[in-house]
Amino acid sequence: MPRYQPIDAFQSPRFCGVRTFARLPFVTTTQEVDATIIGIPFDTGVTYRAGARFGPAAIRDASVLLRPYNAGAGVDVFGTLSVTDSGDIPIVPGYIEDSYERIQVGLKPILDAGIIPICLGGDHSITLAELRAVAQRYGPVGLAHLDSHSDSWDVYVGRIYNHGTTFKRAAEEGLLDTSRCIQVGMRGPTFDAADYDVARNLGFALMPNDEMRRHSMTEVAEIARKRVGSGPTFLSFDIDFVDPAYAPGTGTPEVGGVTSWEVLQLLRGLRGVNFVAFDIVEVLPAYDSGQITALLAANIAYEMLTLQCFARSGRKAQV
Amino acid sequence: MPRYQPIDAFQSPRFCGVRTFARLPFVTTTQEVDATIIGIPFDTGVTYRAGARFGPAAIRDASVLLRPYNAGAGVDVFGTLSVTDSGDIPIVPGYIEDSYERIQVGLKPILDAGIIPICLGGDHSITLAELRAVAQRYGPVGLAHLDSHSDSWDVYVGRIYNHGTTFKRAAEEGLLDTSRCIQVGMRGPTFDAADYDVARNLGFALMPNDEMRRHSMTEVAEIARKRVGSGPTFLSFDIDFVDPAYAPGTGTPEVGGVTSWEVLQLLRGLRGVNFVAFDIVEVLPAYDSGQITALLAANIAYEMLTLQCFARSGRKAQV
Amino acid sequence: MPRYQPIDAFQSPRFCGVRTFARLPFVTTTQEVDATIIGIPFDTGVTYRAGARFGPAAIRDASVLLRPYNAGAGVDVFGTLSVTDSGDIPIVPGYIEDSYERIQVGLKPILDAGIIPICLGGDHSITLAELRAVAQRYGPVGLAHLDSHSDSWDVYVGRIYNHGTTFKRAAEEGLLDTSRCIQVGMRGPTFDAADYDVARNLGFALMPNDEMRRHSMTEVAEIARKRVGSGPTFLSFDIDFVDPAYAPGTGTPEVGGVTSWEVLQLLRGLRGVNFVAFDIVEVLPAYDSGQITALLAANIAYEMLTLQCFARSGRKAQV
Amino acid sequence: MPRYQPIDAFQSPRFCGVRTFARLPFVTTTQEVDATIIGIPFDTGVTYRAGARFGPAAIRDASVLLRPYNAGAGVDVFGTLSVTDSGDIPIVPGYIEDSYERIQVGLKPILDAGIIPICLGGDHSITLAELRAVAQRYGPVGLAHLDSHSDSWDVYVGRIYNHGTTFKRAAEEGLLDTSRCIQVGMRGPTFDAADYDVARNLGFALMPNDEMRRHSMTEVAEIARKRVGSGPTFLSFDIDFVDPAYAPGTGTPEVGGVTSWEVLQLLRGLRGVNFVAFDIVEVLPAYDSGQITALLAANIAYEMLTLQCFARSGRKAQV
Amino acid sequence: MPRYQPIDAFQSPRFCGVRTFARLPFVTTTQEVDATIIGIPFDTGVTYRAGARFGPAAIRDASVLLRPYNAGAGVDVFGTLSVTDSGDIPIVPGYIEDSYERIQVGLKPILDAGIIPICLGGDHSITLAELRAVAQRYGPVGLAHLDSHSDSWDVYVGRIYNHGTTFKRAAEEGLLDTSRCIQVGMRGPTFDAADYDVARNLGFALMPNDEMRRHSMTEVAEIARKRVGSGPTFLSFDIDFVDPAYAPGTGTPEVGGVTSWEVLQLLRGLRGVNFVAFDIVEVLPAYDSGQITALLAANIAYEMLTLQCFARSGRKAQV
Amino acid sequence: MPRYQPIDAFQSPRFCGVRTFARLPFVTTTQEVDATIIGIPFDTGVTYRAGARFGPAAIRDASVLLRPYNAGAGVDVFGTLSVTDSGDIPIVPGYIEDSYERIQVGLKPILDAGIIPICLGGDHSITLAELRAVAQRYGPVGLAHLDSHSDSWDVYVGRIYNHGTTFKRAAEEGLLDTSRCIQVGMRGPTFDAADYDVARNLGFALMPNDEMRRHSMTEVAEIARKRVGSGPTFLSFDIDFVDPAYAPGTGTPEVGGVTSWEVLQLLRGLRGVNFVAFDIVEVLPAYDSGQITALLAANIAYEMLTLQCFARSGRKAQV
Repeated sequence: MPRYQPIDAFQSPRFCGVRTFARLPFVTTTQEVDATIIGIPFDTGVTYRAGARFGPAAIRDASVLLRPYNAGAGVDVFGTLSVTDSGDIPIVPGYIEDSYERIQVGLKPILDAGIIPICLGGDHSITLAELRAVAQRYGPVGLAHLDSHSDSWDVYVGRIYNHGTTFKRAAEEGLLDTSRCIQVGMRGPTFDAADYDVARNLGFALMPNDEMRRHSMTEVAEIARKRVGSGPTFLSFDIDFVDPAYAPGTGTPEVGGVTSWEVLQLLRGLRGVNFVAFDIVEVLPAYDSGQITALLAANIAYEMLTLQCFARSGRKAQV
Repeated sequence: MPRYQPIDAFQSPRFCGVRTFARLPFVTTTQEVDATIIGIPFDTGVTYRAGARFGPAAIRDASVLLRPYNAGAGVDVFGTLSVTDSGDIPIVPGYIEDSYERIQVGLKPILDAGIIPICLGGDHSITLAELRAVAQRYGPVGLAHLDSHSDSWDVYVGRIYNHGTTFKRAAEEGLLDTSRCIQVGMRGPTFDAADYDVARNLGFALMPNDEMRRHSMTEVAEIARKRVGSGPTFLSFDIDFVDPAYAPGTGTPEVGGVTSWEVLQLLRGLRGVNFVAFDIVEVLPAYDSGQITALLAANIAYEMLTLQCFARSGRKAQV
Repeated sequence: MPRYQPIDAFQSPRFCGVRTFARLPFVTTTQEVDATIIGIPFDTGVTYRAGARFGPAAIRDASVLLRPYNAGAGVDVFGTLSVTDSGDIPIVPGYIEDSYERIQVGLKPILDAGIIPICLGGDHSITLAELRAVAQRYGPVGLAHLDSHSDSWDVYVGRIYNHGTTFKRAAEEGLLDTSRCIQVGMRGPTFDAADYDVARNLGFALMPNDEMRRHSMTEVAEIARKRVGSGPTFLSFDIDFVDPAYAPGTGTPEVGGVTSWEVLQLLRGLRGVNFVAFDIVEVLPAYDSGQITALLAANIAYEMLTLQCFARSGRKAQV
Repeated sequence: MPRYQPIDAFQSPRFCGVRTFARLPFVTTTQEVDATIIGIPFDTGVTYRAGARFGPAAIRDASVLLRPYNAGAGVDVFGTLSVTDSGDIPIVPGYIEDSYERIQVGLKPILDAGIIPICLGGDHSITLAELRAVAQRYGPVGLAHLDSHSDSWDVYVGRIYNHGTTFKRAAEEGLLDTSRCIQVGMRGPTFDAADYDVARNLGFALMPNDEMRRHSMTEVAEIARKRVGSGPTFLSFDIDFVDPAYAPGTGTPEVGGVTSWEVLQLLRGLRGVNFVAFDIVEVLPAYDSGQITALLAANIAYEMLTLQCFARSGRKAQV
Repeated sequence: MPRYQPIDAFQSPRFCGVRTFARLPFVTTTQEVDATIIGIPFDTGVTYRAGARFGPAAIRDASVLLRPYNAGAGVDVFGTLSVTDSGDIPIVPGYIEDSYERIQVGLKPILDAGIIPICLGGDHSITLAELRAVAQRYGPVGLAHLDSHSDSWDVYVGRIYNHGTTFKRAAEEGLLDTSRCIQVGMRGPTFDAADYDVARNLGFALMPNDEMRRHSMTEVAEIARKRVGSGPTFLSFDIDFVDPAYAPGTGTPEVGGVTSWEVLQLLRGLRGVNFVAFDIVEVLPAYDSGQITALLAANIAYEMLTLQCFARSGRKAQV
Repeated sequence: MPRYQPIDAFQSPRFCGVRTFARLPFVTTTQEVDATIIGIPFDTGVTYRAGARFGPAAIRDASVLLRPYNAGAGVDVFGTLSVTDSGDIPIVPGYIEDSYERIQVGLKPILDAGIIPICLGGDHSITLAELRAVAQRYGPVGLAHLDSHSDSWDVYVGRIYNHGTTFKRAAEEGLLDTSRCIQVGMRGPTFDAADYDVARNLGFALMPNDEMRRHSMTEVAEIARKRVGSGPTFLSFDIDFVDPAYAPGTGTPEVGGVTSWEVLQLLRGLRGVNFVAFDIVEVLPAYDSGQITALLAANIAYEMLTLQCFARSGRKAQV
């Protein structure tokens, strides 16, 4: 049995105890750990609503509803993986570059130990720091990016770091193998007709919502899997990929998004990808209703763990 | 014309008056009544969020938006059936077995008079008491159970009665003809890979969400109708069958559920089944937003009445 | 470049400044203006929940998230049209006929100048006054009416003016060319089996939700476009056309409605229609959650502007 | 024992059953009744936020927390008085004069039978119709009016009936013996320096908040009692008399108001006044939080019943 | 320096990390600990609103705003005491007697080690189990009970255990030295004129709200201190002691309560009492607004720790 | 009559129109203006909850309830002063030093023209930039600072600029004449026993909440007036000075604060002070309930205008 597992809900009801992700042990060890949940409560990078610094706490709070076996995927998640909750990286509120350093420092030992981090945002600016840490360990990685925005602006009000410039910066810094990168789900008004071209010119594949809608979610997953190939890959999920009806608690919502069921189908279709790190970002509890956004985010993190079960058995299988 | 009908909204606006279901008369007679709405405000059986004791009040509050004619189904509901609101059964908060007795006592005269009860929960533990009352009148019944959970655990924290054990208990007590029982829509993480097998081993048909999604809702209804056959049948609808975007106000939500439109299609597809009792459970107003969960639950109860119109005309037709 | 455009978000973040629609200039000129947003904060006409008087403010508040280019439609909205925010018409709360006069007076100069008004409600009773103003300028117009209700009652509690009688009155007053009118999406319980016949007897085409669901949204749009033909047409969008999960903030919600994505598809399918005026009504912020209803309404108004871009280039093309 | 009493909470928990005021019988008889609760769900008269039509339902909902004995006042309320819930008067939404007629018609049999009505608003415009009914029965009455506004405007946007003109109209119509009228608690910005003079010129005593604050609440009550004397008197309580911290759910809140404890002291100080009718108005549930406004309003109605216990024993004593 | 202290907010912002009380270490040791926070998430004992099972989590969430030094009291709380967060006792939802056993088992090692427990409820029924544990260690104790209710009913719907019978049971079981017990703040309607006599007949001093209001809070504290004397004493704080404006998030609110400032004054006045255990109960987050109830509860727990600093220095002083 | 005044509510109801402060003209002129409202929607400086960037919009939204005459103070505010709404300063989200520059640039022309700015925050970090602009115009100024925190930290997580260091920085930069500075109302836990000494060592007078409570609000105002003397003075009001019951919508609330009535008394007591600029900060709408915080903030700004009426008539009197 895995070393680290959730508390047994048949002994202690799920509403009991300190809120770690899925009631996993809060430990900072890198021994006997397959994957770890880590919060990055930073929201200084936002251009509209702030408050995603409370995202990790909200996701943990909702995550106590998770149970060990992923019935939809047919995977015994916590019977397969040893998972911990590493707490939060102590970012510096109001200072993005200081925080980038702390994020990189915080992720390094986890990545060095071969542990898969599942980062809970925080706004999407944190992904740049995550990718710096990941690239330091794995070199330029592939990217599956699910979002309503491409986040590939160049500058915003004279500044190059914020949640709208993340992937342009990452590409420029050589953190991504753009030939293995895909952005899926872009929708909503943009500032310019050429907005998506910026990403494409960086080498990303970009599939806007309208194009995505012409496929089933399984097909979309297949396209993404082909694009990212077999190399080490990062999965970045911005909760605003989902429609505001399903995820009201976010900072820059866009109407016309997918349902929670479509999300599950898409994520489950990514089985077999060699993911080395994940994040789920832009959960903003102050605009949530009935905890539905946080619960969806917790389930997305859980599907990420599920993907990791496949990756792990896959890697074993290949041996 | 039916003896008991709602107040005419062209004389008295719908926001006027004491909140009975659909502004039906609050009477406790069993004379000249075809169906009755009855609240069971019990939530001691929950394992996560409590508060469904306010479910009946919230559903009544939202139900004043209902009007007499079901345009989608083409049925003059309140022109066909004489319906009353019987108020609530005075359960014993904090004591499940005492409450079970009171529920059984409360339902007996209704069932004995051949009136169809539509029970407003309350958490799903109440269904066991309802089934005891129903089986006393009709013998073991068939079951159409729409839910995200199978509610077939054996024990929970050492106790056999709560909202997660209802259908295992009901089967064990011989209240159900399991060969005519079907559970539809199960999804979300489970405690164990074998969770659904428990229900199947009891004799239930169980169609998880993933399997259900491969059919249209009309087909799902057809499958359910075949399963329950022509004998007396109970329809139990847990509001968490629906996605949290449509029904945030519930105790143990699971992402990836159906829409309100799919619910209507599924329920309308159950025409002709010989339903003898209904419940709609797990509405928890404190987590609702904009009354949408309560409104959906009120409409589900209204569709149950609609089904009863068909059953009634069907029975007449057979004569 | 158009004379009136939004503030540039790269100079001034979108959360800055006085809330006009999309941060457009608040001016009341009729010179060099193609279209204008105008609020009509009237809700005395409602039969259930009141509060839509705060609809225009809520839509403006959410609309600052809009950006100039409609990526889904491929149209540079604010690069094509000169658009202003005309503020609100100062209606008389509590007095529907006084308010009707003020609405007509308020819209006249806009319509006379050939400017396309996009009216933000307010409850659906305002559409009668809008149609009076429009018919005065254009004669009887066609109508594309998206709603869960037909709003074609004759009288309500003894009175002929309210949000449930709008389209019967409009037809009777000769404001509509009913042979070019279509109502789409009706659903929910009605007072009578013959409710929809009233509208049909007035000459409207009426496509209930159940019938609409048998088509794709593109087909529905095609049907509507054929019906309204090439003459001047009014587009009236009641936010309760959408499901309460997507639009909880409204006065008389009905379950079983469409998604935000279906709305976008339907509206985009109406390209080429000769719309001369628009409204989006029944947004009730006090029941909204996380601003999702207001955001959807803002996007609907934005799609209306987008349709106008097509109409404008179409008209040019025809010259 | 009184003929009509609440359901016993030791037999049926307070959250059970159809929501009548304090779970009193919903009957419309005038036999063996001392006082009755009656809702007037009218809000067309408001000048700012609408939605008080849901006030009666919200107050009833919160009132189930009331118990029979008023410990603070030392009075066995429901052991002394026979009280019923008469439901709501079916007003005509959107039409103030029609509604005034219906209110008058609805109150007449109650007043004629010598029953004390406690009216649940609804906005403050309803008080004019109530006073018409009361004056018809008792002649011009005294008035104790607790409010943050004097409600003595002459016209508003060209119209003479709305919630800001109530007491000017009542005085003009001769419904009040202004020499026995007092308005207490006025505060907040006004339109004009002379605003309070209007009321004073009508003959009212008017004690603004600043003046009131120089007295204890017991002294304020004493002043009011002296003013209204021993003749038949109406007590009108606008919930915005209380600070928004204690009563957020209202239409035109003003900061700087009193606490709930000060309210209780003031009301209890009015013992012995010959009240013949009461209202508690302007409760707007959509802006309430945690039901605190509705609960306070329910307690105010309960204190009104308590005052009636004193009046009743006083009258008996005088015989 | 104390062994266990909160995380330094100048290194890690207060919104970072897993939510323990005041970001104290979550450890279960009894070594080098002066006081410990322990959650008891049980709400099966309620007679009205349920949901206080989420009280401990909500209080922890708000408690991260606490800082080490109590400036108002002039005490360096976390520089004086070694404090831990012991997590929650895994109660059995739905089963009060099972839960009582678990509570007693959970508190025993803490009490045996001479550690002061500060229990976070949960509903007020838990105090009976706490008192059983405390009396087992210290014998019958004194009681300072701040509440709007006396919680001294005999039976409720036929059952002897729930949140309304706690102190009657405790007295009957001999857990209290009633000559050293005082209940303060009772208000709101009661079921009977004799309700408070029940408590007095048990030997409690009982000071209702009306009597309390005749004193300053310092005087009230002085009266309570005299009553409880120098023996071991339990302090039980029901959050509904405070007015709903300050503490909306609770199960059975009563209007007319004290302010947060009055609470602080009262608690600070209790310096020197020999408290051996504390609880703060009935926090119900689903009815809270803006976290104000939870924040107040966190501060109350913090004042309890502050009292313990005095008790400790007092005890030292006595040596 | 003043050049710029609010829209007349008797012509256009207060819920009509684009939300400027009190429905004043949105113009950026410096001609014929006595005072101006200006938003500074910056919240990057916060150490706990973010979101005060929406403060100015929320205050404007609530401010439409204001009317021209301040009845409590006996001042015809908008009949005395010509007031405009200058919109918001376009700060740079995420970058405090860039934003400081923009704030200074934005305020300069206003101050140079002798107009009194009333700044709507935003978090308390903005006050440093405001003071830089003010000192540039007037030299070092006096300060009346109402707050629950002293905001005089030296560094926070290694950085010198944020909402907790404002007044230390201001003193160090020589923007304040500390001999004329007073901080009032400090309460809540601090990081250190010496926290308040930091401010005192800078030369500030500091009156904590406990000390303040020993005086009436009129006396507190008198003390403050004496301290600031007759020189040019800045009034900075942090909404968390008020208790969370009255102002839940803020970022770092502290229990035990004053009421709205006490706020009015205190502000009105500051008559005659030579205020040259004002701000009201830390309004965070996402945590507000029923708009009560925003309404209170709007009234505070209105009292600031009222103070300016006195200052103006005073200055005139001196001529």
